[in-house]
Amino acid sequence: MTDTAVDSRTPLTLLGAGAMGTALARAWLAAGHQVTVWNRTPARAEALAADGATVARTAAEAVAAHRLVIACLLDDASVDDALDGADLTGRDLVNLTTGTPAEGRARAAWATARGARFLDGGIMAVPPMIGVPDSGGYVFYSGSPEAFEEHRDTLAVPAGTRYVGADPGFAALHDVALLSAMNGMFAGMLHAFALIRREDIAPKDFAPLLVDWLTAMAPAVHQTADQLQSGDYTKDVVSNLAMQAAGIPTFLRTAEEQQVSPELLAPYLELMRKRVAQGHGDEDGTGMIELLMEGAH
Amino acid sequence: MTDTAVDSRTPLTLLGAGAMGTALARAWLAAGHQVTVWNRTPARAEALAADGATVARTAAEAVAAHRLVIACLLDDASVDDALDGADLTGRDLVNLTTGTPAEGRARAAWATARGARFLDGGIMAVPPMIGVPDSGGYVFYSGSPEAFEEHRDTLAVPAGTRYVGADPGFAALHDVALLSAMNGMFAGMLHAFALIRREDIAPKDFAPLLVDWLTAMAPAVHQTADQLQSGDYTKDVVSNLAMQAAGIPTFLRTAEEQQVSPELLAPYLELMRKRVAQGHGDEDGTGMIELLMEGAH
Ligand SMILES: NC(=O)c1ccc[n+]([C@@H]2O[C@H](COP(=O)([O-])OP(=O)(O)OC[C@H]3O[C@@H](n4cnc5c(N)ncnc54)[C@H](OP(=O)(O)O)[C@@H]3O)[C@@H](O)[C@H]2O)c1
Ligand SMILES: NC(=O)c1ccc[n+]([C@@H]2O[C@H](COP(=O)([O-])OP(=O)(O)OC[C@H]3O[C@@H](n4cnc5c(N)ncnc54)[C@H](OP(=O)(O)O)[C@@H]3O)[C@@H](O)[C@H]2O)c1
Repeated sequence: MTDTAVDSRTPLTLLGAGAMGTALARAWLAAGHQVTVWNRTPARAEALAADGATVARTAAEAVAAHRLVIACLLDDASVDDALDGADLTGRDLVNLTTGTPAEGRARAAWATARGARFLDGGIMAVPPMIGVPDSGGYVFYSGSPEAFEEHRDTLAVPAGTRYVGADPGFAALHDVALLSAMNGMFAGMLHAFALIRREDIAPKDFAPLLVDWLTAMAPAVHQTADQLQSGDYTKDVVSNLAMQAAGIPTFLRTAEEQQVSPELLAPYLELMRKRVAQGHGDEDGTGMIELLMEGAH
Repeated sequence: MTDTAVDSRTPLTLLGAGAMGTALARAWLAAGHQVTVWNRTPARAEALAADGATVARTAAEAVAAHRLVIACLLDDASVDDALDGADLTGRDLVNLTTGTPAEGRARAAWATARGARFLDGGIMAVPPMIGVPDSGGYVFYSGSPEAFEEHRDTLAVPAGTRYVGADPGFAALHDVALLSAMNGMFAGMLHAFALIRREDIAPKDFAPLLVDWLTAMAPAVHQTADQLQSGDYTKDVVSNLAMQAAGIPTFLRTAEEQQVSPELLAPYLELMRKRVAQGHGDEDGTGMIELLMEGAH
């Protein structure tokens, strides 16, 4: 809490009262912001009236209510549907709808052409983390630096903020990149649990070993970043790719012994094998990135 | 350091003076253990004489020197090659050679039939971590509980120890499972770096975001363990599989926009799609494990 009077807080419009929109609305209302909400299906918006929200009958009416307009809808197409016919002149549009980098850039051009400043956001949180200090959740923002500067305190109410650049595609790019990496980690964990599944090993005894090991190994990525920036994939290598590739049969045979499909593991091992076959056995894993870049070879 | 006189420390034999064997030998010598070492190529063993090791001319001679015999060789076949003709009667054989669970079990039966007690080990460290307190590295052990109990202090000299059961296959199983999960995480990180590769984003600015995000998300695995033990994959679900699967096109389209091959990501997304198509959209990701278990469906 600050000394600021309640009515000095930026009033805002929220388009979308789904699971995430509702959590966002509640966080802003709880912090004393005036919130006008619109939802395609009125019942979900009306549920927020009890928390103090003003319910608009149409999206155009909601957009007309305040300068700061936040959209949290299903996908990019639903943003078109909702904002069709709304007057965005002089508005600051913040789009928290998940999308691709190209969608973020196209939406920025679209909003700018309609006289608005634009910020794209990528939410790194689930609804129960919204409005909870130190939940670990946050939102990536990119686009208009002026709009971010003006609204940063308001945007920081539901979750931490990380502004990652003026390029409006960067919020989505960071969002998708981190979630992609997380999916890789979850895929690895799932394979690990599958390996022990038919044995007398309690998943709850095994889980802390997994968490500790992955937490200890995650910082190896700083070495990857260092090698990518220097362009030298053989710099400070501790366990080179040829040695790592020598372990491939052990991974695959263990999966076979435990009757586990290798489908989640195989593509990475295959990439290793390919890079070594190309004569890069003295590198770290970093060089495999070249094989992922399409059109690069 | 303890008050124990130097010559009360267990003397031991080490078979294999490769990168790992050499690091192990140095750690035991530095801690005051008498070490007899053998290596197929004599020069690598002789290099350890300067550190105080006794060099044996044959593996059989090395095995005859001490009751505690540690093997750290290339692979399971090299253990056969080295120990062919050695008398293992009354010996405690600790095999730190990387292998599969089935190899660990077969080696235990083989050693027991020759009159030895047996421990299998899986080294979760690279040579620079050996002998370094708090390096984060450790060794999984499984097999004879009596042999582990008797030698636990000696085994704890080069790296921390984690005894995971009497089943001699469990050390290898834990080792391979954790490294498989790590490969999944590294695959995810590589894909993430590939996504930002053609953009004006410094890998060194991006790396800490990756580390923080994966470190924050890794504990989600406790929920997976909980669901596996209860058998209820719909328990305490925050973001169900149907919702997660709705994001698949965003992952694939972002990869396409950034001209990155989806090969590392696609199998996990495909598994999601399959599980949802089977009518399990209300579950967490845990249920996908059923699709990995061969012969289970
Ligand atoms: N929930 C999470 O864990 C989470 C986490 C990170 C990011 N996000 C992102 O946040 C956004 C919202 O997610 P959510 O969880 O709130 O989803 P949700 O509960 O399914 O809500 C979807 C919202 O979009 C509206 N909508 C759908 N199609 C529309 C259309 N054609 N025109 C206008 N409105 C339309 C829905 O209105 P109706 O009520 O009329 O259907 C509803 O308000 C998504 O982009 C999602 O990826 C969610
Ligand atoms: N280095 C690591 O980062 C690391 C990490 C975890 C686990 N490990 C495991 O530790 C073990 C040893 O690895 P390392 O790094 O020391 O490998 P290394 O440097 O390649 O050494 C291999 C050792 O095996 C011996 N050897 C190979 N074939 C043999 C045969 N047919 N008969 C007898 N001896 C044979 C070699 O003898 P010569 O000198 O005569 O070739 C050498 O002593 C492996 O199982 C590895 O997976 C290593």
